[in-house]
Amino acid sequence: MPLHARIEAAVAAAIADGQSGSPPPRLASALQYAVTPGGARIRPTILLSVALACGDRRPALADAAAAALELIHCASLVHDDLPMFDDADVRRGKPSVHRAYSEPLALLTGDSLIVMAFDVLARAAVHDCAAAVELIRILAARTGMPGGICAGQGWESEAAVDLSAYHRAKTGALFIAATQMGAVAAGQEAEPWEELGARIGEAFQVADDLRDALYDSETLGKPAGQDAIHARPNAVAALGVQGAIRRLNDILAGAIASIPSCPGEAMLAAMVRKTAERLTPVAPVRARA
Amino acid sequence: MPLHARIEAAVAAAIADGQSGSPPPRLASALQYAVTPGGARIRPTILLSVALACGDRRPALADAAAAALELIHCASLVHDDLPMFDDADVRRGKPSVHRAYSEPLALLTGDSLIVMAFDVLARAAVHDCAAAVELIRILAARTGMPGGICAGQGWESEAAVDLSAYHRAKTGALFIAATQMGAVAAGQEAEPWEELGARIGEAFQVADDLRDALYDSETLGKPAGQDAIHARPNAVAALGVQGAIRRLNDILAGAIASIPSCPGEAMLAAMVRKTAERLTPVAPVRARA
Repeated sequence: MPLHARIEAAVAAAIADGQSGSPPPRLASALQYAVTPGGARIRPTILLSVALACGDRRPALADAAAAALELIHCASLVHDDLPMFDDADVRRGKPSVHRAYSEPLALLTGDSLIVMAFDVLARAAVHDCAAAVELIRILAARTGMPGGICAGQGWESEAAVDLSAYHRAKTGALFIAATQMGAVAAGQEAEPWEELGARIGEAFQVADDLRDALYDSETLGKPAGQDAIHARPNAVAALGVQGAIRRLNDILAGAIASIPSCPGEAMLAAMVRKTAERLTPVAPVRARA
Repeated sequence: MPLHARIEAAVAAAIADGQSGSPPPRLASALQYAVTPGGARIRPTILLSVALACGDRRPALADAAAAALELIHCASLVHDDLPMFDDADVRRGKPSVHRAYSEPLALLTGDSLIVMAFDVLARAAVHDCAAAVELIRILAARTGMPGGICAGQGWESEAAVDLSAYHRAKTGALFIAATQMGAVAAGQEAEPWEELGARIGEAFQVADDLRDALYDSETLGKPAGQDAIHARPNAVAALGVQGAIRRLNDILAGAIASIPSCPGEAMLAAMVRKTAERLTPVAPVRARA
């Protein structure tokens, strides 16, 4: 089965479990809304690519890990779009969850998706209890405090920001979770896979900065120019457009160099290159005023 | 060690883990603020009481379960106090988290506490992997969708409310988690313990209705009269004060009758009676205008 089909099936199965019995109908609908359409599913794709590169010894565990990671990512988008954070009306080309439903339902959707992510991994313990618990520990570390995406978002409420901790937690954390969870689901050690995830995360951050600075809202499918509006650090502001593109390519070369020795090493390098092509803004981009 | 000391130590250890390294300082501070002062810690007290009644075979697992349950309860209070829900300025006699910090930090505090709860249980897997996973599954079922406290809160966004599903999820869920997690942490089956949790939850709901209707905000330590303001169902409105007190006592008698056979059966019955005394508003209460 192609990766995207595995990911969609795993996410759909998790959401279906959360809608069984007689749940409150609007919240049940909002859960479904928050995870579709899928978009690139870039984090679970990386996760499954690493699992495959390591032999994909327990596909059911890898699928659960992919679904759990994507549920956390979707939860973070729903919460980040709320008026108290980015106040984004649009996400993936359609109204954000709080615009389509309500702020209370958006908050509960995020909370429910977080819980569901850990439940999906706990269910997968039937395949390998110790591995499932390690997957839960990795996902928790990269989601909550002190070093996960919650911590990353928390840095935005500080007067003095530790920029390296900020970027590592805000954008890097779920990419590190992706590479480490893929390895663990396939029976490998997590630790050697941290650097690849961290470097993909850095590349993603620079690419996101480029898109935020260069694209309009219609192309992005979400509000553009948010970094300038919220006075957030941005690689384009620091390095210029060409400098940021050079930086992106340097990081991706480092990412490829960091891939641990494994049967699917060449395939993973190709995946990183493909991700790079997808991430790098192609000319001509329209500069906003 | 007395139960309250076990609970405080377990909660404090979890929060300390979430503040290690270099987390964003204000969010780290908000986590601590959200879980103190402890108040009655009624859910983890029930959990540990059940574990003790069942022999408390793995105290470290029971302590982890108690901490995880209390972290979820505190997360729900922080999110429920937000302006989009109860808009509560005061909680446990001090400013609510969003008043003391900010709305973004309150949302992130709740998210971080949810993640931390599952991480605490995953850490405890070193004592018994299968039991830790079952604890995670129970806590997830009683926290998220379709039947946990998120679902309970979700019912408040519905035009037509399934009242029984609403109360079971909104108030009952974490009491069922308390009795079932206590039993599982001590190596017993979860299922026979559902009814005791459900009945304590019902009793708590009626007691909460009585307090909300009869007490002023100063006595409650949080805004009073919220059910009338938000047009939520309330046992006092339906049965009158004396009727609601009779109903509370009937439910507690049923709770005691439902206690499964175990070494600490008599101790548990005494715990339920003591909970009843603590819950039942004592005369004279001051009726609000």
